[in-house]
Amino acid sequence: MINIGIFGWGNLGKAAVDNLSHFPDLQLKAIFTRRPQAVAASAPKGVCVADANDMPQWAGKIDVLLLCSGSATDLPEQTPAAVKLFNVVDSFDTHARIPEHFAAVDAAARASGHLGLISAGWDPGLFSLSRAYFNAFLPNGTDYTFWGKGVSQGHSDAIRRVAGVKRGVQYTVPRDEAVARVRSGEQPALSTREKHKRECYVVAQPNADLAEIEREIKNMPNYFADYDTTVHFISEEQFDREHGKMPHGGFVLRSGNNTPELQSLLELNIRLDSNPHFTSGVLLACARAVKRMYDDGKRGCVTLFDVPPAALYAQSPQEMRARLL
Amino acid sequence: MINIGIFGWGNLGKAAVDNLSHFPDLQLKAIFTRRPQAVAASAPKGVCVADANDMPQWAGKIDVLLLCSGSATDLPEQTPAAVKLFNVVDSFDTHARIPEHFAAVDAAARASGHLGLISAGWDPGLFSLSRAYFNAFLPNGTDYTFWGKGVSQGHSDAIRRVAGVKRGVQYTVPRDEAVARVRSGEQPALSTREKHKRECYVVAQPNADLAEIEREIKNMPNYFADYDTTVHFISEEQFDREHGKMPHGGFVLRSGNNTPELQSLLELNIRLDSNPHFTSGVLLACARAVKRMYDDGKRGCVTLFDVPPAALYAQSPQEMRARLL
Repeated sequence: MINIGIFGWGNLGKAAVDNLSHFPDLQLKAIFTRRPQAVAASAPKGVCVADANDMPQWAGKIDVLLLCSGSATDLPEQTPAAVKLFNVVDSFDTHARIPEHFAAVDAAARASGHLGLISAGWDPGLFSLSRAYFNAFLPNGTDYTFWGKGVSQGHSDAIRRVAGVKRGVQYTVPRDEAVARVRSGEQPALSTREKHKRECYVVAQPNADLAEIEREIKNMPNYFADYDTTVHFISEEQFDREHGKMPHGGFVLRSGNNTPELQSLLELNIRLDSNPHFTSGVLLACARAVKRMYDDGKRGCVTLFDVPPAALYAQSPQEMRARLL
Repeated sequence: MINIGIFGWGNLGKAAVDNLSHFPDLQLKAIFTRRPQAVAASAPKGVCVADANDMPQWAGKIDVLLLCSGSATDLPEQTPAAVKLFNVVDSFDTHARIPEHFAAVDAAARASGHLGLISAGWDPGLFSLSRAYFNAFLPNGTDYTFWGKGVSQGHSDAIRRVAGVKRGVQYTVPRDEAVARVRSGEQPALSTREKHKRECYVVAQPNADLAEIEREIKNMPNYFADYDTTVHFISEEQFDREHGKMPHGGFVLRSGNNTPELQSLLELNIRLDSNPHFTSGVLLACARAVKRMYDDGKRGCVTLFDVPPAALYAQSPQEMRARLL
């Protein structure tokens, strides 16, 4: 059995606990949190909830710690700190800052003799793996990634910071026309606006200026200004009924040529009822791989690009070859 | 530079040469064949064509040999023999015999201190990788593989053995209804007949009994009897015009649940103008990985399940993380 810990009791940490029964070689030893009393009240029975400040006492009792916090401010601090005590897996997803995060985790892991796997999930994660294989096998081509239809937490947070907004959620939606052009093998150059549109569902505060909310959302730089954005005002009842889940999904496509006349089109396509639940499955499989690679002597920081697929899979290499090859 | 050799000058070997310019770190040292004079006449200028019997003289001059022969009778003999002299990559695709082939290559490779990677291509190969990641990340679910629309060499050969058939080609075609049911998330149990149908295009010999040809094809055990098969008789002109390529493709789908209420659907979907051309790209990337893993001390037999994705990719791990993660 591989002993795991979970740090962070948000959507991802809770989903990991929901998912754990499908990973029979992993057992949860403790949930670490900065709010142990509040979490103890909501955690499933029989699960040990520990104060994050007490983590050093758990060194040696946890094989792999899953870091289930956010990438914006938590993981850049928590992952390098945690890898001083444990082997770790995180889902750091701020693409532009991955080199810096990798370097910080690598230095801390080498100093303490641990192994850390960063940026696991679906993008980065399963999507990255697809891009890697597609590029390796079809070097002459063009990559496309489309996200959605699904809830973007960052954009939903941005909506909720607008004055007069009580509740809000944002769906990223790939444009059918753009996807169809790529699937046709055309290899088009696509602008940001041509690839995705953004749909917002907002519950306004009583007496709020709806036109002003809509204007402010649509013109928000970085988040919405470069997209065709639609804002729907709905009642709180409708919001609760229709927008309580966190579905997501998307496509990775690579369109390329083996010779000038002969094309190949490769596509990964995923549809998730719950983004955090699927992501937690990737983290749990990665915890298994980290334990195995650590036992083989691997130290420092790695990503899924460094992990042989066999290390992620529950059964033996023989069974894997017979069943899946 | 990685020095490669190619053994076998059929569709796959020729496609590997066509594809080589997209792998700038690989250079072709020699094509090995049992018919050196005939091949020398058709091989591209500047490529060295060598007698397969002279392979022992090339030991030490070739980093990785690509075996580009058939799985039915050639590779079970050739791969274990070749790995005594070189590191090798093959595309052995008789799924049921992979354990036996793996054992033979592993024993010969360990004895000679080489590394062999078997069963590379798209199925086994890219499809196997998708099944592996999908199963690792979503352990509670059902796998589906659909092939086509594409040319099956084995079934085309079977048609051509029927008396009265001059030319023949067989397309494996996934049934839209079956694919749609899987994509809906239903997880249906599907019979062989429900998953694929078979379409045959035949040029008959003059005065042949068309009804008898059709009856014989449709009732052929293993190949056609379990499927809904359509036989189209066409002219040789139409055959040459419309059926000269080797397109293929297909889908790998995994439909599963993270919790009883929350589903995930994962799909890889590929469309290839030329099956051998895409397959050769996988073999060439695998040659790169074999050289790197051999240099790292790896010996024996492996499959793509044992290869970290980074080993397949041309650029450095840093560039790979920055570009593809």
